[in-house]
Amino acid sequence: MRKIYLHRLDLPEALDKYIKKLDETGFFKVESEVIPTRLALNRVLAGSVYARKSVPMFISAAMDGIAVQSQHTVGATKANPKRLKKDQFVFINTGNPMPEGFDAVIMIEDVNIVDEETVEIYESVPPYHNVRMIGEDVCEGDMIFTRYHLLKPQDLALLLAVGVFEVEVVKKMKACMIPTGTEIVEPEKITNDLHIPETNSVIVKNFLSMLGVDVEVLPPVPDDPTIIKEIVQNIAHDFDMILLGAGSSAGTVDYSYQVAEDLAEVIVHGINIRPGKPTILAVLKTNPGKPLIGLPGYPGSCYVILEEIVKPIVLRKYKLILPKSERIYAVSTRRISSSISDDEIIRVSVGKVLDKYFFIPLKRGAAVMEPLTKMDGKVVIPRGVEIVEEGELCQVETSKSLEEIDKNILFVGSNDPIISILADFVKKYDYTIGMSISNVGSMGGLAAIAKKQAHIAGIHLLDAESGEYNIPYLKKYLENFVLMKFVKRSQGLIVQKGNPKNIKSLLDLTKKGVRFVNRQKASGTRILLDYHLQKLGIDPSHIEGYQDEEFTHLGVALKVKNGFADVGLGIALAAEIFNLDFIPLFWEEYDLLFLPEFLHDERFQLLLDVISSKDFLDFASKLKGYDLGQISKIIKSGDLT
Amino acid sequence: MRKIYLHRLDLPEALDKYIKKLDETGFFKVESEVIPTRLALNRVLAGSVYARKSVPMFISAAMDGIAVQSQHTVGATKANPKRLKKDQFVFINTGNPMPEGFDAVIMIEDVNIVDEETVEIYESVPPYHNVRMIGEDVCEGDMIFTRYHLLKPQDLALLLAVGVFEVEVVKKMKACMIPTGTEIVEPEKITNDLHIPETNSVIVKNFLSMLGVDVEVLPPVPDDPTIIKEIVQNIAHDFDMILLGAGSSAGTVDYSYQVAEDLAEVIVHGINIRPGKPTILAVLKTNPGKPLIGLPGYPGSCYVILEEIVKPIVLRKYKLILPKSERIYAVSTRRISSSISDDEIIRVSVGKVLDKYFFIPLKRGAAVMEPLTKMDGKVVIPRGVEIVEEGELCQVETSKSLEEIDKNILFVGSNDPIISILADFVKKYDYTIGMSISNVGSMGGLAAIAKKQAHIAGIHLLDAESGEYNIPYLKKYLENFVLMKFVKRSQGLIVQKGNPKNIKSLLDLTKKGVRFVNRQKASGTRILLDYHLQKLGIDPSHIEGYQDEEFTHLGVALKVKNGFADVGLGIALAAEIFNLDFIPLFWEEYDLLFLPEFLHDERFQLLLDVISSKDFLDFASKLKGYDLGQISKIIKSGDLT
Repeated sequence: MRKIYLHRLDLPEALDKYIKKLDETGFFKVESEVIPTRLALNRVLAGSVYARKSVPMFISAAMDGIAVQSQHTVGATKANPKRLKKDQFVFINTGNPMPEGFDAVIMIEDVNIVDEETVEIYESVPPYHNVRMIGEDVCEGDMIFTRYHLLKPQDLALLLAVGVFEVEVVKKMKACMIPTGTEIVEPEKITNDLHIPETNSVIVKNFLSMLGVDVEVLPPVPDDPTIIKEIVQNIAHDFDMILLGAGSSAGTVDYSYQVAEDLAEVIVHGINIRPGKPTILAVLKTNPGKPLIGLPGYPGSCYVILEEIVKPIVLRKYKLILPKSERIYAVSTRRISSSISDDEIIRVSVGKVLDKYFFIPLKRGAAVMEPLTKMDGKVVIPRGVEIVEEGELCQVETSKSLEEIDKNILFVGSNDPIISILADFVKKYDYTIGMSISNVGSMGGLAAIAKKQAHIAGIHLLDAESGEYNIPYLKKYLENFVLMKFVKRSQGLIVQKGNPKNIKSLLDLTKKGVRFVNRQKASGTRILLDYHLQKLGIDPSHIEGYQDEEFTHLGVALKVKNGFADVGLGIALAAEIFNLDFIPLFWEEYDLLFLPEFLHDERFQLLLDVISSKDFLDFASKLKGYDLGQISKIIKSGDLT
Repeated sequence: MRKIYLHRLDLPEALDKYIKKLDETGFFKVESEVIPTRLALNRVLAGSVYARKSVPMFISAAMDGIAVQSQHTVGATKANPKRLKKDQFVFINTGNPMPEGFDAVIMIEDVNIVDEETVEIYESVPPYHNVRMIGEDVCEGDMIFTRYHLLKPQDLALLLAVGVFEVEVVKKMKACMIPTGTEIVEPEKITNDLHIPETNSVIVKNFLSMLGVDVEVLPPVPDDPTIIKEIVQNIAHDFDMILLGAGSSAGTVDYSYQVAEDLAEVIVHGINIRPGKPTILAVLKTNPGKPLIGLPGYPGSCYVILEEIVKPIVLRKYKLILPKSERIYAVSTRRISSSISDDEIIRVSVGKVLDKYFFIPLKRGAAVMEPLTKMDGKVVIPRGVEIVEEGELCQVETSKSLEEIDKNILFVGSNDPIISILADFVKKYDYTIGMSISNVGSMGGLAAIAKKQAHIAGIHLLDAESGEYNIPYLKKYLENFVLMKFVKRSQGLIVQKGNPKNIKSLLDLTKKGVRFVNRQKASGTRILLDYHLQKLGIDPSHIEGYQDEEFTHLGVALKVKNGFADVGLGIALAAEIFNLDFIPLFWEEYDLLFLPEFLHDERFQLLLDVISSKDFLDFASKLKGYDLGQISKIIKSGDLT
């Protein structure tokens, strides 16, 4: 009995059809397992991960030098050095905790040691100069990874540093390869010249092991459909994928098709590719959803089908995008200064906006680990170059493939923990799409969209005249805009548990003994604060700590939690995460500003789907301090008069 | 005691200086171990490997169909079918041995089965049509890999198929990481907020494991130079490389430098790179040649030094060039026909000749494994395209990095086993330089050089008029040439052991019952044969088997060995390899024709060094049938009048 091929398909069509079928049967559903973090190299996270501890956990010297009180340094210059006496300075090494009462470090190279009890200094330093703050790298409560993140060496280090010793990862697949053919023999067992060495299984096993799939190879099975069928039935339960070696062609002893037809639904038989034509793609009936693949018997064909069919299926099952280093040219979104005497390596986010690549520098400095885990690539600023201007083209060595970079969404603007959650949900709906989140404040976000350097900005900009959010700013700065209403969020005062300083309103910020922690200039929260201070007639210079700036809500909350401040303005969720008290003051409108051209991008539709999904809305509605009443409503500049 | 950095170096200078030192101390000398082939994935071969068996080992059907005797098919056409009766045909499946006396296969699709004892055929087929010959993929005795080949899944399959069950590979390196610092603690053991989690070792261990280095991490050691020194001394014997974590800076408790200065020769202290500056590169005195590296303590710096210093050292020690897939455009050196209905994947060699990439198709067909192991990349000829013309630009997806491809030497022309040996020696002298060898015959080689599509051609072309080798052809076809005299080799008749047919000279080829096996047209050996036949007045049509062509000397010898022919013309070495008898007839001059521009290429100097080395000459002089009297003498077109 000779079989004829089913209607043969072209390769992309065959793969699509098979993936669609496997999707229906639930094969691509994520299965996970919990393993020790130390063993998780090259595994894919099954869920998002939050920091359980901050890095660093205490305030420490960022340099070797002397710890000082910044107030004692005021007025020191090269021309007019100042002397510090015993008790006014402490020698300190990089990484050492700052001694009580000292708030800045002067580098040892800039200190003249006069005698054991006296040093001379030549500069005036502000508070926290050369000091590593708690959470400078990562704040407790931060989402450090979204789901489906591929774990690299530095990721494992960060996980351990933030106290995550076990991780939930996508489960390893187990595949079974059944070589068939009466004439084939394991190469080591060949005893005569008519034996054919069975070596395809060696290719299959090692090829798949490089993708993280465990393959069990059975001894060769003779060309007997009854035996092959029996074996498949017996093992189907224990494996995620069954590969039949050879027999998928149309010879009189090619029984794979017969086996597949009896036990499975054959989706594809025969692909218009050379080598590789005699291929069977089927789905088991007995164990619904499990793929049964009939590999061609010739090694050249078998290899093609591994590369073109089996590999994409495994990657999809694993939600895995293989990293790849490529060299591209990208535009700098910042002015970057660099040391003239050193090559400097800057880790960056990279995205493609309207056919041009842009990069956003991540946190700099040797001490931080997070940029190593978040980077899309790196830029080397060679010695001899002091400044890279905004808009300058630089070579970027990516650590992701261009396919992945091209799909990357550049999200800039105001900081809100819900954005990380959104990024995680985006991954859930399409694992190939990542979001690089840059906290540059609402105005920074608006500017990036105006300059077409990002896809989305998160903004909450209060117009002082109208008391209205966002729209007045957009009208003023953009000719053409697309705004998606996102969340109202509760902003208020974050204070220590039990509110020991009895803070009730902004008026209390000027009280003696109340130390405030502020947000950085141009952030929406800072604008909000300044707006209300002005309205209340409060002079910021009367607020202790007004100059002390943090870049995120969690940063503010953490400073309060650790006792370095008594109060900060921030969102309810940040207080909740650290179990702090919260005095709600205002509802503000945190919206998403889109690059107008992005509306025609497939990723926009995906975002809209995610944001409108029951899944996401359910999750977001359980977060403290958010109102989702207007979520996903779109306002375009043209709609307004 | 604070240390100051030694004169700081720029990164490339620092790496060069350190590598030079490690080279002097013998660190990069290859150490090897023998392991089972099945476990050798991603390992690097320490020596060249030869096939112990041919693939395939018997003559078999390449298609499902009927086995026939080609003489019975003469005259069959569509219009005038021919019927074959029982005994004149046998049904046969792909891979089955050919039945005794049958020499061709007709595809089942082209056969009309009239009844059980009769079939009708529509074509006349030549001998060996749709038949896989012994050694079609690989011949016993072929060098299948040069040293320093990185073993991929398909390579393991080929090794097993040719009977190589154990391989000698470059030994795994063992590194030891010693984290230092009184304040650092393994993350799982942190009990208070002033502990710093020791996570650099996690980066180091996993980073190096991805390069195939085993890393043992010791528990953190306090900042005490005596203890650190003692540990280094105790473990140095057991490891190939020692990494000190942190302490390489200039703080008061940075003892790595002190340790390095006492136990080792410090080659570099301080590199002009950010992050990464505080780095120590040293070589142990106690265990000469072993690297002692002081890694910076900050994770961002540590990572940079792993990437920029440690990784290149490991790769060099392993003779490993990491594979990388890139898309380039390359010129086809052949006219290629392809199926109009299928996407066709062609494995190719790729090289850069005078700033243009060229590709040479490797053996086609699904059945062969060797192209999978030799390929530099692949070309997909899409369905709908029937012909790729010579000179046409195609996209190539490489399986090697461009750095590797750019250094690849394209060697074309006549086949001689000594060329594989040369390629192996080139690797020995510079592991970054590969040679892709294409057997296209002497005239094919000359043409490729004329068209500037290759770097070197191996030629042995006898001028019928003058009886002189090579130069007359070059004068005729090339305006400008550079020829390097290479070897004289003994050509003669390869006959079965004991010479049962009593063959003594070319005159015996026309004797009844003597079956000859020929070389392909335009090969130097074929030209040599035809020259002498003409001189002797022998009519080729009187030689049985004159039409039966093989592409290599080993292919000819193998056919004789397996009894499919009684005699062939070939080199002494081929007879030697298969333990056959050899009747020497002529000395011929096998020389290397270079692309003139290649003379100014670094690789030319390397080749010259290799060919002139005692090492290579000793090896070559032991091979049977070569005369090295004129080797490496260069003749340029300008030198001749």
